[in-house]
Amino acid sequence: MTTMTLNECLDYLNENDGYLLLTHIRPDGDTLGSAAALCHILRRLGKVAFLYPNPQITTNYDPYVAPYMAPPGYEPVTLVSVDLASENLFPEGFSGGPIGLCIDHHPTNSGYAQNLLCMPEKASCGEIVLELAKLALGGVDKTLADLLYMAVSTDCGCFVYANTKPDTHRAAAELMEAGADYKALNKKLFRTFSYSRLMLEGMIYTGMKRFGPDGCITVATVTLDMMAESEATEDDCEDLASLAGRVAGNKVSVTIRELEPKLCKVSLRSGEDFDSAAICALHGGGGHRMAAGCTIHSDPDETRDVIVWDILEAM
Amino acid sequence: MTTMTLNECLDYLNENDGYLLLTHIRPDGDTLGSAAALCHILRRLGKVAFLYPNPQITTNYDPYVAPYMAPPGYEPVTLVSVDLASENLFPEGFSGGPIGLCIDHHPTNSGYAQNLLCMPEKASCGEIVLELAKLALGGVDKTLADLLYMAVSTDCGCFVYANTKPDTHRAAAELMEAGADYKALNKKLFRTFSYSRLMLEGMIYTGMKRFGPDGCITVATVTLDMMAESEATEDDCEDLASLAGRVAGNKVSVTIRELEPKLCKVSLRSGEDFDSAAICALHGGGGHRMAAGCTIHSDPDETRDVIVWDILEAM
Repeated sequence: MTTMTLNECLDYLNENDGYLLLTHIRPDGDTLGSAAALCHILRRLGKVAFLYPNPQITTNYDPYVAPYMAPPGYEPVTLVSVDLASENLFPEGFSGGPIGLCIDHHPTNSGYAQNLLCMPEKASCGEIVLELAKLALGGVDKTLADLLYMAVSTDCGCFVYANTKPDTHRAAAELMEAGADYKALNKKLFRTFSYSRLMLEGMIYTGMKRFGPDGCITVATVTLDMMAESEATEDDCEDLASLAGRVAGNKVSVTIRELEPKLCKVSLRSGEDFDSAAICALHGGGGHRMAAGCTIHSDPDETRDVIVWDILEAM
Repeated sequence: MTTMTLNECLDYLNENDGYLLLTHIRPDGDTLGSAAALCHILRRLGKVAFLYPNPQITTNYDPYVAPYMAPPGYEPVTLVSVDLASENLFPEGFSGGPIGLCIDHHPTNSGYAQNLLCMPEKASCGEIVLELAKLALGGVDKTLADLLYMAVSTDCGCFVYANTKPDTHRAAAELMEAGADYKALNKKLFRTFSYSRLMLEGMIYTGMKRFGPDGCITVATVTLDMMAESEATEDDCEDLASLAGRVAGNKVSVTIRELEPKLCKVSLRSGEDFDSAAICALHGGGGHRMAAGCTIHSDPDETRDVIVWDILEAM
C-alpha cells in the first residue's frame, strides 16, 4: 500500500480510466456525496466513471446520485473506494477485486487499497474531494457544490456534532458561495422527516423510561408493533439509537429494537466515563467505549431488565 | 436617529459609561449572547456595564449571562439595546427611557434609538459584536468566544436555517479557533432536551393529523392534559409551532395550543405559496404570509375543524 498526497492522487486519477467508485455499506451523505462528486470530476477530466449501484441508498440521497450509477454490464478497469475504512464495509453485493485507490478520512483506515489518500484531519471525505476538485478543475461548479455540501454537512449532522472543525465551516462557506442549494439541502436532509418517522419517534419518546441515579439511564424501545403501527420502513429507522441520548442529564442510553419475537438488538451509547462495550461484551456483543451493541434472545421488557441491571452493577 | 459605522459605534462606547444593556422580550441566544459579550467588552474597556435582568431568561442560557446581571438598585447612565428591532420588544418590566444606542441586524429596525448600528447583512447580532470585539480589543478571548458562538449558532438553528450565510460559517470557524467550547454548547443548546419536552414532543407527533390533497395540511395539537401528563413548563414549549412543519411534503402546518378550556391559540406556518395571515385574519388574528396566529374560543377538536376548513377553502 502506497500513501499518496493530493497531487499524487490527481496524477493517478489522470493516468487511469474506466472508473467504478465504491461507497460503503449503509451509505450516508458523505460516502455518496463524495463519490458522486469524484465521479463528476473524473467525467470533466474526460474519463469514463460510474458509481457502484449500492443497493442500500435511501430515498433522500437517490436523486443526487442517480446520474452517476453504473449501467448493468459496465466493465470497470479501475476501482476506487471513497470513505471506506476497511474491507468489511464494502457495499452489499460487491464481489471484490483489487482496489486501486482509496480516498478516506478515517485514521483507522486498514490500508487494504493499493494506494491511499487519507486525511484524518478532515471531518468529512467531502472536504478531501473539495481539495481535489480545486486542484483538478480550478474551482467548484454548481453540481459539485451541491454534492459536496451534502457530503460535508451530513457527516457532522449539519455542524452540530463534536467532529465539526473550523475548516468544516470554511468548506461549507466555500460551497455555499460556489452555488450549493444549502436551503433545499438542509430542509431535505435535516429539517423534514417522513410522517412514519415522526410517528415512530413520537412512540419512542412517549415510551422512554429512566432508571438509576437521577434517572441517568434512558431506555428507548422499538417494538415490531410500533414499526407496524407507524408504517415505518428501514428508511425511517436511521440513527434511532441516538434518540434516547437526547434527554438532558442522560449518561447511558439504551435502545432496544425488537427484530423478531424473542430477539432484540441492543444499542448502547454513553459518555467517556462509562464503558458501553463492556456491558455488551457480557452478552457476546462489542463495539467502542461510547457506542456498542449486542443481541439478546428475549422480549423487549426482559431485555430492558437485563441490560439495566448490568449497567447499574457497573456504575 | 443617527446611523453609525462600527468605528463610530466604538467611539460612542468609549465616550460613555454606566451602561445598562437591554435584551428583547422572550430572549433567545442571540440577544443574550450578544449583549453579554458587549458587556464583557465594555468591562475590558474599563467601563461599568450590566445587563437588564430580563425576567424571561430560560435555564439554558442563565449560566452564561448570570455574571453580567445588574444588581438591584443599579442606576444606569447609558442605555444600549441589542437585537431589539422595535420598542414593543422591550423586555418585561422595563420602564422605558431614552435608548442611547441600538445594535441590531434586522432590516426592519424602527429607528427608536438615538444612535443605530444596524448591519442587516449579518445573520446574527453576534457577528456584529464579533466585529466590535476585534476592533475594540484586537481579538476575542475565551469568554467572548463562548458567548458569541452561542449568539451566532442559535440565530441560525446551528447553521441549518435558511438565514445561514457563508460569513455565518466563517464567524463560527473564527470563534471555535478563539476557544469557544462548541462541543458543550452544541450539546446543551441543540442536542439535548428536558425529559418533559421529549415526552410532550412524543405526544404531539403521535397525535398529529393530516388533511387535504396528499395530506399536505398537518395539524398538531397541544392540550392542557398533554402539558400536565408530560409535566412540561413554558421552558419546554419553545418553538412547538415548528414541529408540524417537519413532515415531508407539508405545505401548511397548524399548531393548536389549548390555553384554557374553550380557548385555543392557533399558529400557522406555510411556504411562500400560501397566505397564513389571511386565514388567521378570518378569526381576528394576523402575522406574516409564512407565519401567522389567531385565538379561537373553542376546544381543540372544534378549532381544528374550523381552521382546516378555512385552509381547504383557500387552497
